Amino acid sequence: MQQTWIRFRSPRGDTGFGLVDGDRVIVYDGPGYTGSKPTGAVLPRDEVHLLAPCEPGKIVALWNNFHALARKLEKPVPLHPLFLMKPASSLAGPGDAIERPASYRGKIVYEGELGIVIGRKCRNVGVSEAASHIFGYTVVNDVTAAELITEDPNFPQWTRAKGYDTFGCLGPGIVTGFDWRAASVVTRLDGVERQNYPLADMVFSPEEQVSRISQDLTLMPGDVIACGTSLGVGSMKDGAVVEVSIAGIGALVNHVKG
Amino acid sequence: MQQTWIRFRSPRGDTGFGLVDGDRVIVYDGPGYTGSKPTGAVLPRDEVHLLAPCEPGKIVALWNNFHALARKLEKPVPLHPLFLMKPASSLAGPGDAIERPASYRGKIVYEGELGIVIGRKCRNVGVSEAASHIFGYTVVNDVTAAELITEDPNFPQWTRAKGYDTFGCLGPGIVTGFDWRAASVVTRLDGVERQNYPLADMVFSPEEQVSRISQDLTLMPGDVIACGTSLGVGSMKDGAVVEVSIAGIGALVNHVKG
Repeated sequence: MQQTWIRFRSPRGDTGFGLVDGDRVIVYDGPGYTGSKPTGAVLPRDEVHLLAPCEPGKIVALWNNFHALARKLEKPVPLHPLFLMKPASSLAGPGDAIERPASYRGKIVYEGELGIVIGRKCRNVGVSEAASHIFGYTVVNDVTAAELITEDPNFPQWTRAKGYDTFGCLGPGIVTGFDWRAASVVTRLDGVERQNYPLADMVFSPEEQVSRISQDLTLMPGDVIACGTSLGVGSMKDGAVVEVSIAGIGALVNHVKG
Repeated sequence: MQQTWIRFRSPRGDTGFGLVDGDRVIVYDGPGYTGSKPTGAVLPRDEVHLLAPCEPGKIVALWNNFHALARKLEKPVPLHPLFLMKPASSLAGPGDAIERPASYRGKIVYEGELGIVIGRKCRNVGVSEAASHIFGYTVVNDVTAAELITEDPNFPQWTRAKGYDTFGCLGPGIVTGFDWRAASVVTRLDGVERQNYPLADMVFSPEEQVSRISQDLTLMPGDVIACGTSLGVGSMKDGAVVEVSIAGIGALVNHVKG
């Protein structure tokens, strides 16, 4: 069964968790992956302000996880997921500004991606057990200060380029039981479609990612794996509005603040 | 004034925080950087089991931050700190085993380092303000599955190689007011000295690191910056005992479990 979990700021200003039920939000006392319980409160959907749907301790972000992109880059597909981490401090939610770092004048690029939200602590989990450790899926914009990656010829600065505050955009909600196999990621920049790629083209499926990455790092409830992007990455001018959407999950909209 | 803060497991099995006072521990109700208060309890120092002295949300680890190592690598010193992140899940404390990953048979190396423990939230902090955001200093063994870094020719796997559980060894305590300028990092492998380098050879001082990295990432209380290592990095066999020490802070001892 599919459910949509959100994290929100209530009209009174406090942070809440809830399950979307049509135009209502059934309020829970914690995130869906914690065994939380309904508080009894129900709020109109349009009276809550959406926040990033979880607060990951870490965001594990994959590079080169789509066949089409690997072909374009003329790189072989990897034998194991290739990843970096975006810190918890990079988190941004629906509607939040993507803030240009004060010290950086170069290109800031969008990367529309599927996000896996971990539901249970994972260490050395097999592929067949991985699905039961996935709470659900969200939409990610893995924002990147692209020119920093290669600024130093001796050390690619993936962490710095992708780790700035507001560069880890997640939302709008987390959908449980979501079938990614038939879905596509669509990114629109100022209303113009720039990415539209099928998730079926992934090199490592979500279950394989969870299994293999759990051999490397212990994944915790609320952690997010950003599955990597495919063709169509491009740069965003200050003031641009970027929307990443996956039918069945929703649309994540942010803007660039220079 | 110098103080030594520890985190420990008490004889009753619960986790505590405290200030070392000779052979006693004055127990506090939280980490030293949170404005914690004495609980009134005092424990004999030798009855508590030391844990990693803080629980960082992230460990920012520098590469190529010592002039002597840069010369040996024949690389120019960087213009900005070059860093990756080790996740919270990599944390290990004094006496803990460094666990060889099940899937990895290659070299596991020690890297003895100075660790900066952040005391206050830092974002865009100037060099002159940085000192007031540093709570104190600890010792780090930035353990690395060295052969993974270059396993994939297209993507250096720094995060994976340094991010395994137990690869982020910290301890024994956090010393406030510590003057790193005259101190050295000494690493002994099975009792034999393998590293002995002066911290005065750093490219970016702790204050410069905090200032510059805070332009990139928001640093939070309890976060750790591992200042990078210098000459003498080497591999550890299963069963080896590794001790990293800095006079004035203490000795961090761990062993490799194959």
